[in-house]
Amino acid sequence: MAATRILTDECIAGIVREVGLDAIMDEVIGCLADSFAEHEPDVVQTIARSGFRYIKPDLGLIEWMPAMVAGSKVAIKTVGYHPSNPVERNAPSVLAATALYDTADGRLLALCDASLLTAIRTGAASAVVTDVLAVDGPITLGMIGCGAQAVTQIHAVSRVRPIERVLAYDADDLVAATLGTRLAGAGLDIPLHIVDGAARVVADADVLCTATSVDPEAGPVFRDGPHRPGVHVNAVGADLPGKFELPRELLDRSVIVPDHREQCLAEGESQRLDSVAIGPDMCEVVRHRDRFVELRDRPTVFDSTGWALEDLVAADVALAHAERLGRGLSIDLQPHPRDPYNPYESLRS
Amino acid sequence: MAATRILTDECIAGIVREVGLDAIMDEVIGCLADSFAEHEPDVVQTIARSGFRYIKPDLGLIEWMPAMVAGSKVAIKTVGYHPSNPVERNAPSVLAATALYDTADGRLLALCDASLLTAIRTGAASAVVTDVLAVDGPITLGMIGCGAQAVTQIHAVSRVRPIERVLAYDADDLVAATLGTRLAGAGLDIPLHIVDGAARVVADADVLCTATSVDPEAGPVFRDGPHRPGVHVNAVGADLPGKFELPRELLDRSVIVPDHREQCLAEGESQRLDSVAIGPDMCEVVRHRDRFVELRDRPTVFDSTGWALEDLVAADVALAHAERLGRGLSIDLQPHPRDPYNPYESLRS
Repeated sequence: MAATRILTDECIAGIVREVGLDAIMDEVIGCLADSFAEHEPDVVQTIARSGFRYIKPDLGLIEWMPAMVAGSKVAIKTVGYHPSNPVERNAPSVLAATALYDTADGRLLALCDASLLTAIRTGAASAVVTDVLAVDGPITLGMIGCGAQAVTQIHAVSRVRPIERVLAYDADDLVAATLGTRLAGAGLDIPLHIVDGAARVVADADVLCTATSVDPEAGPVFRDGPHRPGVHVNAVGADLPGKFELPRELLDRSVIVPDHREQCLAEGESQRLDSVAIGPDMCEVVRHRDRFVELRDRPTVFDSTGWALEDLVAADVALAHAERLGRGLSIDLQPHPRDPYNPYESLRS
Repeated sequence: MAATRILTDECIAGIVREVGLDAIMDEVIGCLADSFAEHEPDVVQTIARSGFRYIKPDLGLIEWMPAMVAGSKVAIKTVGYHPSNPVERNAPSVLAATALYDTADGRLLALCDASLLTAIRTGAASAVVTDVLAVDGPITLGMIGCGAQAVTQIHAVSRVRPIERVLAYDADDLVAATLGTRLAGAGLDIPLHIVDGAARVVADADVLCTATSVDPEAGPVFRDGPHRPGVHVNAVGADLPGKFELPRELLDRSVIVPDHREQCLAEGESQRLDSVAIGPDMCEVVRHRDRFVELRDRPTVFDSTGWALEDLVAADVALAHAERLGRGLSIDLQPHPRDPYNPYESLRS
């Protein structure tokens, strides 16, 4: 009977080094696009995430995001979002782990750190939708928020559009100042201009990404103003009730594409909208790509809250490489009794 | 920054061997009784379990049971119930794992196999309620269902009442035939009589426990009939909508004590009852023990569906011993970057 495979952050980093960062990102983008296009809710079932949210010791949440491939396995990602982590604890604001269970017997098949995978799949989801809805390249990419997600958002979009330049802004100058070094470290050779206000980012962006830790009720992170007629916005920042990044006016004149309608209405940009004001969802846009490329010259907003299916796909990619490359620890976590009716069997020393 | 502590089944078995099986059971019984008596829903928050249920490849479910100690940690037990496991896969029908997360930063603090812990805490919860509601000993304990849970149910009740004899029945003769060996292996020296029908078990039991894998809509597992006037019933069998073990008539003339009102109405014995027909819950009965011992000469039913708080307590007991004894693996599962804004930092080899 199978042991539990453990993929640590270092193990996943080793896989990404071996496969190549661009190759992994391209693979996740491709797998997500296929999964969205082929999604059948009876075959891959997801349950809207639930969790605990709190303000002590600091504002934060721990949530679980379950998905099941019917007749095969269940994936549950547990994700923490603690915006004070970088400053208070020198830790990423998003930490996550994905557990995979066998639906034949309920065993824990694998546990993977999903911190890097979450950043990659969030970038990849933006890239999949951007590829359908953004103007053709080369583009100017606007980035509001220069933290960890900015790196993977820029990287992911660079795989579907040539990026002429990045205009970036962060409310924290120190965070903005290191973005260039972080992009260079990832091998991303893109001209980067740090600007001193969100307005210029917004005005010139063909593709705009918001990935901020703005507090609930403190948004939007930029004022409405003129922007490129075909601007595509990826609204990414981790989601909470009351948290929003975009000005209402921009939402009102854009086609809103939610990743997961129910979640977006509860905690995404769409929480300020009536459900009838929301457009086709991500799966529909990708499935009927030919129909939706017509939206490229209109403002579009991808309301990205993160979906359990994306985590299932990302874990599958990592685990397939781990298996092929022989990476990861194998641990006998769960009992393998001779007599399945005897819970105390293993107590005989 | 802390690594993730892993407690395998073998590690937990080692702790139980070192501490002693009776001592561990007594400790869990005591900790559960205290937790129930002192339970403040604002301090320890739980969310009703949710999960995936399916009939392919076989009837089964995978569910998650979350609890939070406000300002400290979140415990999520993921539990699988696959009644075909023992016969089809030589595996326990219940397999579980508990993950603990730090609410300060979202890190995964620990992952414990919870298969043995689930059996122990389920027995311990029965013992806590039995101790309040059952007649004084020595008692005859009736057991319907002789699988894995029977061992821990009998063991747990033996810690709160002297057991004169056990009368046991299982629809599967082969399972019943090995119960004596399993009890003896656990050091339980109690006269055991395997009888060839549920009726005799029911008629003579002072405390009756049902722990069966009866299919949904196939219950009850015994017919209503005469029983001891002060019988206390622990209705334990893993719960599903449509699954019930007790005859309706017995429920109607008993005081019903749910472990978790909402869950019991959804999937416990109480699903056939109107919510007003349900009595005080487990926490109330334990908190006001002096008031409820008066129920000892009346029929009482503990509707045990399993509660996330119990899993939190069981994991805490195991982890405290693991720490004291230096047991368990420490694994660097999650990232510890120098720059928390750089998800790709660890890709530099």
